[in-house]
Amino acid sequence: MNEADFIAALRELPLHRGARDLRDDAGIVGAYVVTTDTLVEGVHFLPDDAAGDVAWKLVAANLSDLAAMGALPEGVLLNYPLTEAGWDRAFVAGLGEVLAAFDCPLIGGDTVSLPADSARVLTVTAIGRDARAPSRTGARAGDALWVTGTIGDAGAGLAIARRAEGPDALLARYRRPRPRLAEGRALGPVVHAMSDVSDGLLIDAQRMAAASGVAVTVDLSQVPISRELRGFAFDRLAAATAGDDYELLFALPEGVAPPVHATRVGSFTRGTGLSLREGARPVRLPARLGYEHAPDPNGLPVASPDL
Amino acid sequence: MNEADFIAALRELPLHRGARDLRDDAGIVGAYVVTTDTLVEGVHFLPDDAAGDVAWKLVAANLSDLAAMGALPEGVLLNYPLTEAGWDRAFVAGLGEVLAAFDCPLIGGDTVSLPADSARVLTVTAIGRDARAPSRTGARAGDALWVTGTIGDAGAGLAIARRAEGPDALLARYRRPRPRLAEGRALGPVVHAMSDVSDGLLIDAQRMAAASGVAVTVDLSQVPISRELRGFAFDRLAAATAGDDYELLFALPEGVAPPVHATRVGSFTRGTGLSLREGARPVRLPARLGYEHAPDPNGLPVASPDL
Repeated sequence: MNEADFIAALRELPLHRGARDLRDDAGIVGAYVVTTDTLVEGVHFLPDDAAGDVAWKLVAANLSDLAAMGALPEGVLLNYPLTEAGWDRAFVAGLGEVLAAFDCPLIGGDTVSLPADSARVLTVTAIGRDARAPSRTGARAGDALWVTGTIGDAGAGLAIARRAEGPDALLARYRRPRPRLAEGRALGPVVHAMSDVSDGLLIDAQRMAAASGVAVTVDLSQVPISRELRGFAFDRLAAATAGDDYELLFALPEGVAPPVHATRVGSFTRGTGLSLREGARPVRLPARLGYEHAPDPNGLPVASPDL
Repeated sequence: MNEADFIAALRELPLHRGARDLRDDAGIVGAYVVTTDTLVEGVHFLPDDAAGDVAWKLVAANLSDLAAMGALPEGVLLNYPLTEAGWDRAFVAGLGEVLAAFDCPLIGGDTVSLPADSARVLTVTAIGRDARAPSRTGARAGDALWVTGTIGDAGAGLAIARRAEGPDALLARYRRPRPRLAEGRALGPVVHAMSDVSDGLLIDAQRMAAASGVAVTVDLSQVPISRELRGFAFDRLAAATAGDDYELLFALPEGVAPPVHATRVGSFTRGTGLSLREGARPVRLPARLGYEHAPDPNGLPVASPDL
């Protein structure tokens, strides 16, 4: 089954009232939000990636979902396959770094063995508290679309990790993304809708629009690009369809300035679907808007939307 | 690293106050308990096992940890690798059955793709509420050790699933274990310590004694065996070292009768360690007390203790 069919089948099961019909990255349980992400070796990370960086990204991807809810990290659970001692030790070291960096303690977990030659599959479940953001479903016609930070650095960093030369700053964005927890806290009370950018700016903007029942137009010329990325062979369209940014994408009423540094990249209107332009010029949508949920034919890691 | 070393390394990281030093199967977050279990194809279940049974066992193993806390299921999150449509559909069907059977809704999750030929790795995280049991650390010298239900049926069921003829009732205990949620609720307020029996009666009794700082003696002749198991080539020692029973093991003060049907199988005394006897006769401990955390040299599934 593809992911959409699978999730549609799950929607027929008994759902928790906080499951929000499985349309968002986090569920709500009492005063807490819960979210979970799995990373698969050879799918979401490269077999050569350092274990400590994998630990960092696994936790950061989950905390980014908490950031999109405007929540504070309460703690994480880890499901970990024991393999070789060196990798395991480096993983624990990286785990300690990311937990300390974002003030997020370990609650528990489970360890397993894997059959020989099986890919590592790692899961972290994060629990957050004091969520203060609406979901991604609240964007309205007339809202502007904003994004924090810069886009595409992690995608370029992945290319650097795989084969190319390039600036360490881009590699670091791929290897050690920093979830926008403080920005999420500040934005939570004022935005109409918010999500993180984990699969690509365009696909995540499209999802927000679809979940909100409105149309969205993204202006490629406004997509914020880092100084490092400017010097790299990675155009704005590549940046806007690359994954792993872990920035925050949000809808604000026209005329309202966000309380954090961010860039306006588009606007919501009545209707459905995603449109693209570059300044005044319409741009045809690329075949691929971001990291979709299937093994990538180019062998690139693919991110996976939460339920 | 082996599991003990890995968990020892994790204990050096920032721990949540509800992590209980990673010594129990569930963590405590506010009014909730959280627990997580991962099942690996070829390690915890057989590649031939039906997908619906795998779904059932994955959820049941987690709910059994909630039962040991005397908690009510609040909901579960699922981390699922999409593979072939038939398996996926059968998994969702089994998931629906187990969620309905134990009144436990789905909160959310994550789907991923796997590289070709990789073993399926599935995770469920369960959240429970209103926990009313102490952990497994409270057994005292002078307490009696009790267990619900019968022991060894699932171990025999596994043997049947792999190669032998045998009664369907035993196979069902392996394929569709029933977590003792109602018993856990009734026992919670009266026991000194409680855990489930997931890795084997002897090893789980040993863990309870070690966690409580006391010694425990198990009387093999008292281990409750089902009528079906009596007719099967599976002695009491095999039963007491087999896994996947998902019964509840608990410590009660001497002379106190449990409020649910259960069998007294041993007693706690001052000291350390596990002793075994058969009536009055001391019995030497087997080399293997249960399902330890490493691929089994006999190729049998191995269970995995939670952190």
